[in-house]
Amino acid sequence: MDRPALRVALLGSGVVGTQVARLIREQADDLAARVGARIELVGVAVRDVSKARDGIDPAIVTTDAAALVARRDLDVVVEVMGGIEPARTLILTAMENGASVITANKALLAADGATLHAAAEKFGVDLYYEASVAGAIPLLRPLRESLAGDRVRRVLGIVNGTTNFILSKMDEQGADYADVLREAQALGYAEADPTADVEGHDAAAKAAILAGLAFHTRVTIDDVHCEGISSVTLSDVQAARDMGFVIKLLAVAELSPDERGVTVRVHPTMVPRTHPLASVRDAFNAVFVEADAAGEVMFYGRGAGGAPTASAVVGDLVAVARNKLAGSRGPGESTYADLEVRGIGDAVTRYYVNLDVADKPGVLATIASAFADNGVSIQNVRQDGHGDDAGLVLRTHTATDAALSKTIETLRGLDAVRAVVGVMRVEGEAGA
Amino acid sequence: MDRPALRVALLGSGVVGTQVARLIREQADDLAARVGARIELVGVAVRDVSKARDGIDPAIVTTDAAALVARRDLDVVVEVMGGIEPARTLILTAMENGASVITANKALLAADGATLHAAAEKFGVDLYYEASVAGAIPLLRPLRESLAGDRVRRVLGIVNGTTNFILSKMDEQGADYADVLREAQALGYAEADPTADVEGHDAAAKAAILAGLAFHTRVTIDDVHCEGISSVTLSDVQAARDMGFVIKLLAVAELSPDERGVTVRVHPTMVPRTHPLASVRDAFNAVFVEADAAGEVMFYGRGAGGAPTASAVVGDLVAVARNKLAGSRGPGESTYADLEVRGIGDAVTRYYVNLDVADKPGVLATIASAFADNGVSIQNVRQDGHGDDAGLVLRTHTATDAALSKTIETLRGLDAVRAVVGVMRVEGEAGA
Repeated sequence: MDRPALRVALLGSGVVGTQVARLIREQADDLAARVGARIELVGVAVRDVSKARDGIDPAIVTTDAAALVARRDLDVVVEVMGGIEPARTLILTAMENGASVITANKALLAADGATLHAAAEKFGVDLYYEASVAGAIPLLRPLRESLAGDRVRRVLGIVNGTTNFILSKMDEQGADYADVLREAQALGYAEADPTADVEGHDAAAKAAILAGLAFHTRVTIDDVHCEGISSVTLSDVQAARDMGFVIKLLAVAELSPDERGVTVRVHPTMVPRTHPLASVRDAFNAVFVEADAAGEVMFYGRGAGGAPTASAVVGDLVAVARNKLAGSRGPGESTYADLEVRGIGDAVTRYYVNLDVADKPGVLATIASAFADNGVSIQNVRQDGHGDDAGLVLRTHTATDAALSKTIETLRGLDAVRAVVGVMRVEGEAGA
Repeated sequence: MDRPALRVALLGSGVVGTQVARLIREQADDLAARVGARIELVGVAVRDVSKARDGIDPAIVTTDAAALVARRDLDVVVEVMGGIEPARTLILTAMENGASVITANKALLAADGATLHAAAEKFGVDLYYEASVAGAIPLLRPLRESLAGDRVRRVLGIVNGTTNFILSKMDEQGADYADVLREAQALGYAEADPTADVEGHDAAAKAAILAGLAFHTRVTIDDVHCEGISSVTLSDVQAARDMGFVIKLLAVAELSPDERGVTVRVHPTMVPRTHPLASVRDAFNAVFVEADAAGEVMFYGRGAGGAPTASAVVGDLVAVARNKLAGSRGPGESTYADLEVRGIGDAVTRYYVNLDVADKPGVLATIASAFADNGVSIQNVRQDGHGDDAGLVLRTHTATDAALSKTIETLRGLDAVRAVVGVMRVEGEAGA
C-alpha cells in the first residue's frame, strides 16, 4: 500500500456529514484494504466553525466552502449539505477542478441532474449518488448496473419514511392523521413543518431520480404528478383494511404500454396486504421493481438517518476511489431511450371508489352505466344499505387515469350519488 | 457507435443459456446503447448439436467447448453449464486466452473460487458471478460494492427456492413434508432426486459465496455446517406457528463477537413472523443483511429460473463490457480480512426445545438446572399437562451452539425427560 492517499473534502457537517466523517475515520483500515489506498479527509465545510465536531480535526474545518472546492488537490468532494444553491455551484466548481463528486442531494438531482451529469462528463469525473434515494438501501447501483441487461417495466417505491410511519400507525392503531403526525413529530420522524414529506415533494424528487435510472431517460421533479397523504382519512384506512388492502404513499414510475413514454407519480395508494410492499412498516423504505426477465425484485431497508445514509455515501466513496486508482470512471448518465414523459391522465391504474348513494331501485344500474360510458370496467362492488342511504364500494379494472377521473366527475353529477366519500388508486394486484 | 463489437461465447445452452442468448438478441439495441458497443454472440458450446435452438445461428454452435475457449478473439466467456469439471478447466483456459468470465456456477465458486480469482488476477481479466446466488436478485454487487464502506455483522438468507416452497406449503396447508415434496416435484420446483436442495447442499454453496463477499475472507463449502429440511415435521411447523414463528431454511453467516472469525451454517430455523424474512414465501429468495451503519437491509426476488438467472448474467455482461471498453477491471477478490472460519460449536444462537416429560413435582426444576448447568439461560417456557405426561416447550436466550447442544445431551440423559421431541435454532429475534 504505497499509493498516495485519496484526498476527500466534505461539504456539510450535519447529521449525515458527521457520520460520513466517523466512518472514514473508524473504518480507515478496512477502507484502505478495500480501495487499495488510504482515504484522507482533508477539508470539511460547515456553517458554524465554533461548533465542536467529534473526531474531526479543527484545522481542516472551514466556513469557506467555495475556497475548499476551488482547491486543485482534491480527489473526491462529498456534498451532504442539501438544497439547490450553493450546492450546485460548489459541485460544479469541484468538478471543474478535477474532483469526482458524491452527493446525497435528491432535490438538486431531481431539479437539475442534467447539469451535474454534463459537467461530470465534460471534466471526466465521477458523479455518484446512492444516498439520494432510500438512504442505506443499495438501490441505484443495482438499477443502473445489475439490471442493465434487462427491461424494467415498473418501479413501485415506498421512499419516504415519515409518511410510511404515519400511514403504518393509522393502520395499526386506528389513529387519526393529525394525532399520528404529532406523534411522528415528537419522535423526530417528522419535521416541525412536515410539508415536504406529507405533501409528497420529497418522494417526488426520488421518483424522478428512480425513473431516470430505470428507464434510461431524463425525468425531473416537474414531470412528477404529486399528491400527498394529508387528506387520507381514518375511514379510507379502514375501508382499505376491510378489503384486505393497506394504504401506502407510493412513488410509481412506469413504462407506457407503447414503450415510448413513461409516467411518474406519487400518491396515496391501496396495496393488497399480500404484496411485499404491504409489510414495509414504520420508517422503513422499500423499492419494488418489475423487469421482463428478472421478474419481481424488492430492496428493503432504512431510508433515512445519519448512519444509514453515510453507509451509502461511503460505499460510493469506495467505488469512486477504486475508479480513480484504476484511471477509469463509473457509468455516466444514460438517457439514450429519450422517452416522452407523459401526464397523469395517461397512467394506467385502478381506482377504489367509495360512494354514498340513495338506496332505491335502479341506482346501481345508473352508477354502473357511468363507469361503462367512460370505458371503465368494474372489478368488484360491495353495497351496504343503511336507511335511505347506501354505501357502495367499488374497485375497477385497469384504465387510464383520465378515464377513471372522468368517471368520478360523471358520478359527482348523478342525482343518485349523494357524495363521493373516497377515491384512491390501487396498485400491486396480480395481473395489474 | 463505431467501436468494434464485443465478442461473447456461451458455454452451456440449457434453461439459462438459451435465455441469455435470447436477451442478447432481443435487447441488442438497448445493450449497445448501455455499453457503448454492440454485443455479438460468436460461439455456443452445447452437448448435443442436433437439438434445434431458437434464434441461435447453427453456424456458431459447437460441441467442442475446449476449442471454443481456446480462441484468442473472445472478449467474454459466459459459463452456464454448471458442475466442477469441465467448467473449471474451460474457465481457466478462457482467462488464459484473455477473456473475462461470467459464471453462474455456485458449486465451482464455493469449492474452488480461489483458483478462478487467482487466474483472473494473473491474466488481468474480470470474473463476475451475480447469477450464482439468488438468481435475479442484485445481491453480490451491492454486497461487494454498495456496502463496501460499512461493516457487515450478519447475513441471513433464504437462498433455496425448493425448500422455501416446501416449508411455505407445510405452514400454509398443514401438509406433511413428503406430500409437499411430491407436489413440488410435480410442479417442477424440485428435482426427481431432491437431495441437493432438501439436504441444504445448494444453500451451503451459496452461503460460502455470500460469507466470503460479506466478510472479505475466503470461505469454501467445506467450511459450512449444513443441515437440511428432510427431518422437519409437521409438528415442528405447528409448534412454530403456535409461538408466532415460521420455519425457514436459512443460510447464516456471522462475524464472531471478537471480529476475528466467522461462522457459516445452513439449517432449518425458527424465525418470528414479524421478521421481513418470514413473509418470503413459495419459491422466492431473500437475503437479509445486518451492517453497522446501514442497519437492516433486505434483497428479495426470484432465486432461480431461466429468465431471472439470465437477467443477472446479462447485467454482469454489461458491466464487464463497459470495463473492457474503459480498459479497466471490476473489483477483484477481497480476502484481506483473512478471518478464521470457526465450527458450528462457536456459533451464537438460540434454541427452541420441545420435550415430553413426566408430569410430577420437581421435573421443571430438574430441567431448568440442566440448562443452567450448561450456562444456558431460558427465555420462555410453556407447559401443557396431559395425564402422566407433560409437553414442555422452551426457548433459550443466546448461547454458543456448543453449550446449547451439550444442554440437549444432558436433557436426553434425564429420567424426567421421556423424549426430546424437537430441537431447532431460532434467529431473527430483536436483540438477538
